[in-house]
Amino acid sequence: MTDAPTPPYWAVMFANQRRDSAPDDGYGAMADRMVELASAQPGFLGIESVRGADGYGITISYWQSEEAIAAWKANAEHGEAQRLGFETWYDSFDLRVAKVERAHHWVRA
Amino acid sequence: MTDAPTPPYWAVMFANQRRDSAPDDGYGAMADRMVELASAQPGFLGIESVRGADGYGITISYWQSEEAIAAWKANAEHGEAQRLGFETWYDSFDLRVAKVERAHHWVRA
Repeated sequence: MTDAPTPPYWAVMFANQRRDSAPDDGYGAMADRMVELASAQPGFLGIESVRGADGYGITISYWQSEEAIAAWKANAEHGEAQRLGFETWYDSFDLRVAKVERAHHWVRA
Repeated sequence: MTDAPTPPYWAVMFANQRRDSAPDDGYGAMADRMVELASAQPGFLGIESVRGADGYGITISYWQSEEAIAAWKANAEHGEAQRLGFETWYDSFDLRVAKVERAHHWVRA
């Protein structure tokens, strides 16, 4: 997220272990759709996401305010994705909400 | 990090793009050493880390206090690793310090 505003802003950290399920379980399409949907929410600032070969992944989304996070949490289509996550896609996860106090961006010259 | 304390505590989010360099550039060994070293620091709570096939990675370390983060930042061996990161290992990174306000852990029953 290179175009972040000056802190403070908010982060939602989602660290998760994918369940060992069929590759066509719909997860990839839903993950793409959630990025698209989150990006259209008021107060969305950006997202960083990576998944390793072992199925462990971390996604951090950034938001202007706690209110923006609450609205995203309440989004109906997001709620359906969460339901499928519990039902099918994840073995475990840690979800954390944090207030970003300092940020530093560096790019090789 | 399944044994986290109740918030508030602190997170250091490090999202980085690895430079396309030789596989034997020492990065893996240094990364392992940094986890070992951080784990021995006062106030260290845990770490989550993942790297994707494209060389993009996210590491989040968790700390009891801002003072614990400052002490880790000032660690001499960590400083040397940071220097090598600028010199050799990274193309870009975003580093953020945030105060964790809420946390939720879930495991499939």
